[in-house]
Amino acid sequence: MAAWSLSLSPTVVRIMAEFDLQAYLTQHTELVDAALQTWLPAGDLLPGRLHEAMRYSVFAGGKRLRPVLMMAAAEAVGGRPEQVQHAACAMEMLHTYSLIHDDLPAMDNDDYRRGRLTSHKVYGEAMAILAGDALLTEAFRLLADPRANATVPPATTARVIELVARYAGSRGMVGGQVVDMESEGKTIDQPTLEYIHTHKTGALILASIQVGGLLAGGDDDDLQALTRYGEAVGLAFQIADDILDVVGDQAALGKQVGADQARGKATYPALIGLDAARQRADELCLLALDSLSRFGIESDPLRQIARYIVKRTS
Amino acid sequence: MAAWSLSLSPTVVRIMAEFDLQAYLTQHTELVDAALQTWLPAGDLLPGRLHEAMRYSVFAGGKRLRPVLMMAAAEAVGGRPEQVQHAACAMEMLHTYSLIHDDLPAMDNDDYRRGRLTSHKVYGEAMAILAGDALLTEAFRLLADPRANATVPPATTARVIELVARYAGSRGMVGGQVVDMESEGKTIDQPTLEYIHTHKTGALILASIQVGGLLAGGDDDDLQALTRYGEAVGLAFQIADDILDVVGDQAALGKQVGADQARGKATYPALIGLDAARQRADELCLLALDSLSRFGIESDPLRQIARYIVKRTS
Repeated sequence: MAAWSLSLSPTVVRIMAEFDLQAYLTQHTELVDAALQTWLPAGDLLPGRLHEAMRYSVFAGGKRLRPVLMMAAAEAVGGRPEQVQHAACAMEMLHTYSLIHDDLPAMDNDDYRRGRLTSHKVYGEAMAILAGDALLTEAFRLLADPRANATVPPATTARVIELVARYAGSRGMVGGQVVDMESEGKTIDQPTLEYIHTHKTGALILASIQVGGLLAGGDDDDLQALTRYGEAVGLAFQIADDILDVVGDQAALGKQVGADQARGKATYPALIGLDAARQRADELCLLALDSLSRFGIESDPLRQIARYIVKRTS
Repeated sequence: MAAWSLSLSPTVVRIMAEFDLQAYLTQHTELVDAALQTWLPAGDLLPGRLHEAMRYSVFAGGKRLRPVLMMAAAEAVGGRPEQVQHAACAMEMLHTYSLIHDDLPAMDNDDYRRGRLTSHKVYGEAMAILAGDALLTEAFRLLADPRANATVPPATTARVIELVARYAGSRGMVGGQVVDMESEGKTIDQPTLEYIHTHKTGALILASIQVGGLLAGGDDDDLQALTRYGEAVGLAFQIADDILDVVGDQAALGKQVGADQARGKATYPALIGLDAARQRADELCLLALDSLSRFGIESDPLRQIARYIVKRTS
């Protein structure tokens, strides 16, 4: 894909040069995958096919962006990734359930995701619906799990659950999905597109970042800063996704390029043009970096991820 | 329908005579409905059609059995129904989501429920899936809501959420639904049928009763007694449902009699015969009544509801 450039201060560039993002992503993704192996019900637990279907979609090559962002947010406020491992798994379960249901024939009707058959193609439509329901439910069970929360104040546990449910539900991710669906094939304005993006994708990203800060003991000012970062990064991620749908490499993406357009879905490039979309993504990235000014070197992972999100090619 | 009789001790019969179950059910159902009006997102909140779909199914003439059982359990341990109102609403949202998804074309493909068009017939399949997802998510938001939990110790809030998610998820209600689906048209044995019943229907009933006891401050012995009651009543309810499918009155039920049989679903009457099924329901009712022996007159509503559950005609 065509690259585009960011205006970064010399300090930021220097910090970035000293930090190996790829190693960080690999290490933290492995942490999440190990925790998911532990926390997801075993495939041989009854009913076997249901638990198999849940695992099939969770271990389908996802980038674990939300979990990694949560761990990076925990580190930014001085915490450790291990403190948020269970909540990171819960966010990945929520993300996975939303993908399974999005792919259903009644929704986007996708046969493939990341080059693999979708849940309903492998397990049938009914099982895919139920596997999604079960992952959604298990996410909340895990957020409340007493073993996982042994060192978390119960009031924080309750606050985290309320927050995650708010961002995942009808006023968050599900709401974004509904407006997205209702907008297909229609001409929509930029506020509506921004609503879709900030809700459908942005909400879980923002929730992940806030929960990371909360569980690692961040104070109100920390959380405000993380919220500004999360809002900017969540929207930037989706704009970058829109751009990739136009100029991305099909093999690297593992999905059809131009799919949004073919489906009559509104995107930033379609609405404001490719150059303006890139400029908006860059601006949001700078906004995200700027919002981290109160944190020290511990927030470098968050900085690097923001940059990665708008520069990624898949 | 043909009535069948229970062997009750003279004491129990006397207590029952002094208690007006119909008035109790009406009063407590009104409490739940008022709370649902408050807690469900308003129909004019964006996205409007999603919130309208959520409300359409929640206010579709349900009996509010799970909420009423929760309030009755709270009363049995000396609490008040108002203490559990929010959790009662959450259980009804979970129950409603499960019905919306069960009715989908990929599942039971039902056009009507309680004489009204099902969600996907009114709002389309995609919206029905999302309305179910949103209700499921909102149930957990409400269970963690800080205003609703103002007088609940945060550790109890977390415990309630873990318990509800466990009973609602892959090892509870969703698991029961999967085994039910996999058993359609097959010859299954009694243990499998009991697994389906105790999970698909029994799990949320038992969870409701346990949560009622927990939120109202019941101790471990109270909870053990309520658990025995809830297990018995949950299974009795489903056996009574199976019996009604054979001998019930279509108008009173609001659904087709013989639907289970037509669909090749296993039922207690089909497996062990109508008389043995009635006997089993009666035995479970007596077991439920027996498990309440540690409670005083405050548990009369639970006693009456157990009797009502096996004697109901709709």
